[in-house]
Amino acid sequence: MSKYWSKITAAIEPYVYGEQPKGRKYIKLNTNESPYSPSPKVLEAIKRAANSNLRLYPDPDCEELREIIANYYSINKNEVFIGNGSDEVLALSFLTFFNPGDTIIFPEISYSFYPVYAELYGINYINAKLEDDFSIQVSDFFRENGGIVIPNPNAPTGRYMDAEEIKRILEFNSHRVVIIDEAYIDFGGTSVVSLIKDYPNLLVIQTLSKSRSLAGIRLGFAIGQEELINGLNRIKNSFNSYTIDRVAAAAGVEAIKDEKYFKECVSKIVSTREKVTAELRELGFNVVPSKANFIFASHALYNAGELFARLKEKGVLVRHFNKEKIDNYLRISIGSEEEMETFIEIVKEIMNELKNN
Amino acid sequence: MSKYWSKITAAIEPYVYGEQPKGRKYIKLNTNESPYSPSPKVLEAIKRAANSNLRLYPDPDCEELREIIANYYSINKNEVFIGNGSDEVLALSFLTFFNPGDTIIFPEISYSFYPVYAELYGINYINAKLEDDFSIQVSDFFRENGGIVIPNPNAPTGRYMDAEEIKRILEFNSHRVVIIDEAYIDFGGTSVVSLIKDYPNLLVIQTLSKSRSLAGIRLGFAIGQEELINGLNRIKNSFNSYTIDRVAAAAGVEAIKDEKYFKECVSKIVSTREKVTAELRELGFNVVPSKANFIFASHALYNAGELFARLKEKGVLVRHFNKEKIDNYLRISIGSEEEMETFIEIVKEIMNELKNN
Repeated sequence: MSKYWSKITAAIEPYVYGEQPKGRKYIKLNTNESPYSPSPKVLEAIKRAANSNLRLYPDPDCEELREIIANYYSINKNEVFIGNGSDEVLALSFLTFFNPGDTIIFPEISYSFYPVYAELYGINYINAKLEDDFSIQVSDFFRENGGIVIPNPNAPTGRYMDAEEIKRILEFNSHRVVIIDEAYIDFGGTSVVSLIKDYPNLLVIQTLSKSRSLAGIRLGFAIGQEELINGLNRIKNSFNSYTIDRVAAAAGVEAIKDEKYFKECVSKIVSTREKVTAELRELGFNVVPSKANFIFASHALYNAGELFARLKEKGVLVRHFNKEKIDNYLRISIGSEEEMETFIEIVKEIMNELKNN
Repeated sequence: MSKYWSKITAAIEPYVYGEQPKGRKYIKLNTNESPYSPSPKVLEAIKRAANSNLRLYPDPDCEELREIIANYYSINKNEVFIGNGSDEVLALSFLTFFNPGDTIIFPEISYSFYPVYAELYGINYINAKLEDDFSIQVSDFFRENGGIVIPNPNAPTGRYMDAEEIKRILEFNSHRVVIIDEAYIDFGGTSVVSLIKDYPNLLVIQTLSKSRSLAGIRLGFAIGQEELINGLNRIKNSFNSYTIDRVAAAAGVEAIKDEKYFKECVSKIVSTREKVTAELRELGFNVVPSKANFIFASHALYNAGELFARLKEKGVLVRHFNKEKIDNYLRISIGSEEEMETFIEIVKEIMNELKNN
C-alpha cells in the first residue's frame, strides 16, 4: 500500500500470468503457446520492416491488417478492430460496452482476467455455474444482466459450445453485448464470426498468439458490426491511439495471409492433442474433451498440486490453478510431438514414484 | 451513438491524433517525429529478434530494457516502468494515482490527451493559466488538488521549466503525485529524474518516439520511487500484462545503449531548430523559445489557419490547433536540415502570395 495510490490501485487484485521462466530450460506447457515457429513469411516481413520508417508513427487504424482479416472472414474492414493482444481488446471492450454498477455474467470457471477487468472498472459480475463435466448451461444466461462474456472454447477447460447454443444466448440478450472470446477457436471449433450480420450485439474476439504462433508479438482483434467497432475506437482513442507498432502490423498481415502454414501447424497440434488425450486416459486420467491447444486433466489417485510440483522438478512446466472445483486439475498446453512424448514418459515416471511411496 | 455503448463511450470526446497521410508524400512536420532513422544497431536487433522465439510470450516485466534504462539514469531497475508508448504510460498513471471525482491540475495549453484521460476515468480537472508568453506560473499549483501533470518542455509551446520551479511544486504537493511528462526533454532540457530520490511523489515519464527515432515502435517509460512503480504494475497487470512485444523490447534496449548515435541525432535537431527559429524571426514570426523538437510560431500579418492550408497545398504538413489562445499559432516539427530549408522557401513563397492578394 502507498498513500499515492488511487483507491482502485489499492483495492484491485491484479491478474496472475503463467510463469515465464528465466534461466532453466523447461518443456514449457504452461501458457498455451504454439510449439511451432511463426511462418517464415512473418519472420521475413519483420526483417523488411526493420528500416528507417520506424522513425514515423504507425498507422493508428491498422488499415492493412484490418483488410487482411476482413478478407479472411469475408466481412468488411470496418467490422474489425485491432488491439495489442486479445487481453487489450478485452480490457477495452469491458469499458466500451459494460457500465460501472451493472452486473455482467461469465462462467464460474473461465479466463481469470475477466473478474479483474470487472473490478478495474467497477462492474459487478455473477458467474454462470458449470456442470460437473464443466459444460456451460445456456439457461444461466437467461436473466437480467449488463453484458455477457463467454470464452469458446472455454479456458482452462477446453470445453466447446456450438453455434446453436450461442444463438440462443444472443437472442435472449438482444439488448446487451455478448462477447465470445475465441482465443482458442482455431483448434477444432467453428468461429461464430458469420453470425455478426444477424446479431448486432455479438462481439467476437480472437488472437494471433496461439494458432498463429505469435505470442511474442502482441496482436488480437475484435469482430462485430460497425457500431460496436466504432465504440471500441472511441475508447481506444481515449486511452492510446497508437497501440500497434509498424513491425507487429507487418507481422500480423503475413501471419493471416499464410493460410497454408497456419493450417499445417493447427493440424499437427490437434493430432498431438488427440494422441496425448488417449495416452493420459490410458494412464487413468480424466481428460476433459478439448477443442483448444491445451487439455485439462485430473487423476483420482494423484493430487494435481503434487503432480505439478514433480513435473516442474523434472523440467516440465504445466499450469495448476489453486481454485475451488479445479484444484485437482492440470492444464497442459500441447507442445510438439516430441515434447509430448517426453511429457508422457515423465508422467509415467512420477506415477511410479508415487505408487512406491 | 449506439444503444450498446457504455455511458462513458457515448459521452467521451476522444483524442484527435495528428494526420498520418496515406498516399501523397509530404514534408511531414506535424507529429514531432525524428527526421533521422533509428540507430543501425536498433535495426539489427529487430532483425535478430525475427526468429522462432516469437511463438513465446515476451517477458511481461521487460527486465532487460528496465535494466538498461536504470543504468542510463543511474537508478534502480525497480524504479522503472515500461509501457506501450508514453501515451499508455500516461493513461495507466491517471488510473493508478488519481481518484475519480478528485480534481487534478495541468496547464491550460498542454498535451491535448490529458483532458481525455481525465474524462475517461471520471477525474475532474482545472487548468493552470499560462502567461501571454506561454510560460507556466508555479503559483497556480499551490492549491488543493488530486494530482498534477506538467509536460516539460510543454507541448505544443516548447516552453521549458527549470528544476527549481518543479521542486517548489513537488514540495507544496508532497501528498499528491506530480507527473512530469518529459516526452521532449532530450532536446535541450535537463531531466528531473535525479529528483526522484528526494521526492516520493514525483513520476517522470519519457518516450523513445522522439529523441530515439522510434515512433514506429511503441515504447515509453515512467521513473519514480518503487512504491509508485509498484502501483503502476498493479494497474497494468489488471489491464494487459504483456504490453511490450519481443521485437520492441529488443529495439528499445539498443536504442538506449547507442548513446553516441542518439546524441548525434539530437544535436543535429537542436542546431536545425535554432537555425529555423532565427530564419522565421527574420520573416517576422513570433517564435516561442523552444527546448523541444518543434517550434510554436505565429505571425501578426498572416492567419495561422491560412498558412496551414497553403503549406499543406504545397506539400508541407504542420499542425494547427483550433483552440482559443493558440489558434493563430503553428506547431512545426523540426525536420532534417534540407526539409527545413525547403520549408522556409515555401513559407517565403506563401508570404509573397498573400502580400500580393
